[in-house]
Amino acid sequence: MEKKEQLYEGKAKKVYATEDPAVVIVDYKDDATAFNGVKKGTIVGKGVINNRMSNYVMKQLEKEGVPTHLVEELSDRETAVKKVSIVPLEVIVRNVAAGSFSKRMGVEEGRELLCPILEFSYKCDELDDPFINDDYALALGLATQEEIDMIKKYTRKVNEFLKKYFLEVGIKLIDFKIEFGRLADGTIILADEISPDTCRLWDVHTNEKLDKDRFRRDMGNVEEAYQEVFRRLGLA
Amino acid sequence: MEKKEQLYEGKAKKVYATEDPAVVIVDYKDDATAFNGVKKGTIVGKGVINNRMSNYVMKQLEKEGVPTHLVEELSDRETAVKKVSIVPLEVIVRNVAAGSFSKRMGVEEGRELLCPILEFSYKCDELDDPFINDDYALALGLATQEEIDMIKKYTRKVNEFLKKYFLEVGIKLIDFKIEFGRLADGTIILADEISPDTCRLWDVHTNEKLDKDRFRRDMGNVEEAYQEVFRRLGLA
Ligand SMILES: Nc1ncnc2c1ncn2[C@@H]1O[C@H](COP(=O)(O)OP(=O)(O)OP(=O)(O)O)[C@@H](O)[C@H]1O
Ligand SMILES: Nc1ncnc2c1ncn2[C@@H]1O[C@H](COP(=O)(O)OP(=O)(O)OP(=O)(O)O)[C@@H](O)[C@H]1O
Ligand SMILES: [Mg+2]
Ligand SMILES: [Mg+2]
Repeated sequence: MEKKEQLYEGKAKKVYATEDPAVVIVDYKDDATAFNGVKKGTIVGKGVINNRMSNYVMKQLEKEGVPTHLVEELSDRETAVKKVSIVPLEVIVRNVAAGSFSKRMGVEEGRELLCPILEFSYKCDELDDPFINDDYALALGLATQEEIDMIKKYTRKVNEFLKKYFLEVGIKLIDFKIEFGRLADGTIILADEISPDTCRLWDVHTNEKLDKDRFRRDMGNVEEAYQEVFRRLGLA
Repeated sequence: MEKKEQLYEGKAKKVYATEDPAVVIVDYKDDATAFNGVKKGTIVGKGVINNRMSNYVMKQLEKEGVPTHLVEELSDRETAVKKVSIVPLEVIVRNVAAGSFSKRMGVEEGRELLCPILEFSYKCDELDDPFINDDYALALGLATQEEIDMIKKYTRKVNEFLKKYFLEVGIKLIDFKIEFGRLADGTIILADEISPDTCRLWDVHTNEKLDKDRFRRDMGNVEEAYQEVFRRLGLA
């Protein structure tokens, strides 16, 4: 798998072409951003952790019947993935109230929800990724009903898998964000990443935050938190 | 039907008890408010128009299979209605982009949507009635899945009826907000009002606004717009 020209540089990853038009290489950076790019910094070692963790989780999810973009881990920071056109939806699941949800809804951080919440944001930086519902996605032509149904079905499986996976190592899955993409034939698959950048993870006993909120909120020990998740999952 | 003690004074209506504990009297005021009560004013004659129009529309909706709170019009401004406990959801339907939707989604006012959007806000003044989705309603215990399904079914009927009803008199139904309530036995019925306070109504040919946006946006001729709708519907 040969790295050709860079196609895109995102906030957390670079994307490169390969000799196969259906495959791209993602290269995970240590760059960290928050609040839609307003806050910037570095989390040393994050790229390695996010790459390894994403790949490990996606491999397991494939076994659970969730198709993913994973092709092959190439190095510490690089992975070959199926090239998709990203569905412009951030798919968020909340098991416990936190972050923007807590603020908007007046529900204290840490309160268990009666049932998991699945929600969509419209992936659009200029609009600040606004929260939408299924009808918005349909009415704005962001996805079809069939795609939405498929995305929700997969997302629930991802939540069930991740909750169990983290709980086994003493971590509570508070919420997470995932992205889906379309292959050339329209098939929907899980893309992007699953990592402490995209999940809220709290220690089961102490409720210590082990995720990007440490960076967002200047809590310190950011690297240590990422390393701790990595270590507990047996990936270090 | 005798008016007993006042139970509640809202921004647009007062609610009174009657000798029948299952029936209350709503009394429509000319008071107008916008932006969650921040802007205040009077629209002379509005109470009469909203009372008459709501009642007429609800009578028609009953025939279409939508149960409503309407019992009996008592006077120009007063109507006896079945007392409900209001479901804390503002149920909004959008046929054409306008207002907060246009701003948040970057879609110009007046653009026809690919399909109608049905959305919920959580009726909670302190939180500024935040936009939510179905899962939020379930997870916060605002309504059950069965109630949500019922509310959506009725709301789609209301939209189909109102679109046709207004179009016949040269008015485009842009969007509207309705509320539902629970009877003592849990039955869901349409409550509150349907009026130029709660609908966006544009002249089909000129796109002239014939609704509360004239008040919200200081466009003048507010009374005239309400009277025009009233007159066209043959209710004057
Ligand atoms: N399999 C894939 N094929 C094509 N693009 C992908 C794939 N997986 C992820 N991407 C995209 O790669 C880009 C780079 O990732 P990164 O997370 O750095 O972006 P970002 O700065 O967060 O921007 P965005 O707001 O688009 O997510 C993102 O746009 C992401 O959606
Ligand atoms: N059938 C009914 N039984 C009981 N309450 C009702 C009924 N129909 C409407 N209401 C309620 O009557 C109240 C008075 O109406 P009004 O529109 O003036 O209130 P408001 O100031 O808009 O407040 P709100 O934010 O609660 O709607 C509202 O709370 C409304 O939900
Ligand atoms: Mg990203
Ligand atoms: Mg009201």
